[in-house]
Amino acid sequence: MSFQRLAIIGLGLQGGSIGLAVQEFLPKIATTGYDISPDFRARAAERGLVHTVCDTAVEAVRDADLVIFCVPPGVMGDAAAAVRDAIPANALVSDVGSSKQAVAKALGEALPDHLVIPAHPVAGTENSGPDAGFAHLFRNRWCIVTPPEHTDLLKLSALVEFWETLGANVEIMTAEHHDLVLAVTSHLPHLIAYTIVGTASDLEDVTQSEVIKYSAGGFRDFTRIAASDPTMWRDVFLSNKDAVLTMLQRFTEDLTALQRAIRVGDGDALFEHFARTRAIRRSIIEEGQDDSRPDFGRGDHDGTKGLSE
Amino acid sequence: MSFQRLAIIGLGLQGGSIGLAVQEFLPKIATTGYDISPDFRARAAERGLVHTVCDTAVEAVRDADLVIFCVPPGVMGDAAAAVRDAIPANALVSDVGSSKQAVAKALGEALPDHLVIPAHPVAGTENSGPDAGFAHLFRNRWCIVTPPEHTDLLKLSALVEFWETLGANVEIMTAEHHDLVLAVTSHLPHLIAYTIVGTASDLEDVTQSEVIKYSAGGFRDFTRIAASDPTMWRDVFLSNKDAVLTMLQRFTEDLTALQRAIRVGDGDALFEHFARTRAIRRSIIEEGQDDSRPDFGRGDHDGTKGLSE
Repeated sequence: MSFQRLAIIGLGLQGGSIGLAVQEFLPKIATTGYDISPDFRARAAERGLVHTVCDTAVEAVRDADLVIFCVPPGVMGDAAAAVRDAIPANALVSDVGSSKQAVAKALGEALPDHLVIPAHPVAGTENSGPDAGFAHLFRNRWCIVTPPEHTDLLKLSALVEFWETLGANVEIMTAEHHDLVLAVTSHLPHLIAYTIVGTASDLEDVTQSEVIKYSAGGFRDFTRIAASDPTMWRDVFLSNKDAVLTMLQRFTEDLTALQRAIRVGDGDALFEHFARTRAIRRSIIEEGQDDSRPDFGRGDHDGTKGLSE
Repeated sequence: MSFQRLAIIGLGLQGGSIGLAVQEFLPKIATTGYDISPDFRARAAERGLVHTVCDTAVEAVRDADLVIFCVPPGVMGDAAAAVRDAIPANALVSDVGSSKQAVAKALGEALPDHLVIPAHPVAGTENSGPDAGFAHLFRNRWCIVTPPEHTDLLKLSALVEFWETLGANVEIMTAEHHDLVLAVTSHLPHLIAYTIVGTASDLEDVTQSEVIKYSAGGFRDFTRIAASDPTMWRDVFLSNKDAVLTMLQRFTEDLTALQRAIRVGDGDALFEHFARTRAIRRSIIEEGQDDSRPDFGRGDHDGTKGLSE
């Protein structure tokens, strides 16, 4: 492995998981880390997310040969600009942002003299902060790398190897295509989940207590991703606006068609639509991207796991 | 327990789970069952979902003092009419349908001389058919009972006790209110999940293979409930049309507001909306209606459970 000193800027779910994963799978790499929040830094030190939690970002990046920015998309540029003069000239700069065109632009403008190869591990949970990370977050998940044209191929392959060693499968594509793909597999689902949870909270004729009690009918599934970090998701939608609005338009057209089928009582159209969505679930399970057990393997059916009763 | 002979019409997820739960928690009740599909009947007999799988519905209900219809909402009336003359006069008739006004009407019209007390256990998985049921499906879930006015209170309390013994918490409300509550906690989430999975399948610029690969970004959560039984869900939407369309209207308004916030770049509005949806998730977990572990406790992070790799 060609990297020896990794600096992680931002010690939340992603940054913390990278720190822990590197200690487990790449124990020879020395890790430094920084977070803008003193509380996060203190907790990161307690959990040992990195070898050295630094008091300043400058100190964290000073000797690094790989710097990964793990901050919300909207502050990538500022976080990078703050350490521009401290990052060694030959260090590779990367990130984990959920949108790639805007982040690549922000990092490129903040660090015009450095090599930047953006990346996005498609892995996460609804939790955030320095307590959320764990070493196996990236196992069997995909990490999308979006190198600029004419990039340094040796550095690129070192970054690919880095992510593969942490357990991820790596795919390379353009930032533009990434943003389109993730708009449908991640951004739109989050937007819809946030919307329906909001809708359910605001009803006059159904109480919040009823929404909670009868959530096992399907609603509870949406509340998980709607519990994700609001700052990060605000930034995702603002930074991938065009692709999200495009996908949202398609979704709305399809929803309108189903709405009409319900109103006119067109059972055949409903059945036909509902019958063809099973195959995708089956493929996702076959590809190892979800749990094959019913109900995601939730522990509540046998009452032995996970419930706070 | 005042029931001694239970007949279950329809041996899918719900009927099979009731049969297994009764054998575990109410072993003195004799159970008969029938399903219109010969394959389902054969499999139900192999799994022992009920003590006796009958070749006709008439045979199944002939001696019952409790008959529970576990068929899709759209065929409740027909299934009941087919055994009208065979159900003993003093038997209680119930069901498990996901919509209640339409089902109560259909059962009432088919069985004008019988006592019908509809019910709806808010419990399930994405699986269906005679292999899907399990005895603990109803544990710590809510069962909503929607008795008609001036019902037989002794029979009502016997039905409540029946469900409580199977592990459920019981709530009593009108069929009308049930349909409104479930429209938001179950029907709308299913409609939206079916829609987005369909939208993602139909894109030209993102391949189905990409949708599957990067589904861990959020999309996979929706595919679970979009894998539910299409016949049943067609019937749910047709039979609870008004409440579903009302809730869908509210959802669409909220989605349009968020869409506008994205388009005009109103980060404050997005943040404010995203920040207030976490509390509902917390309440759902506190009320024991979901798994407290991150990611529903999915087994894929440690790679030891549930994955077909």
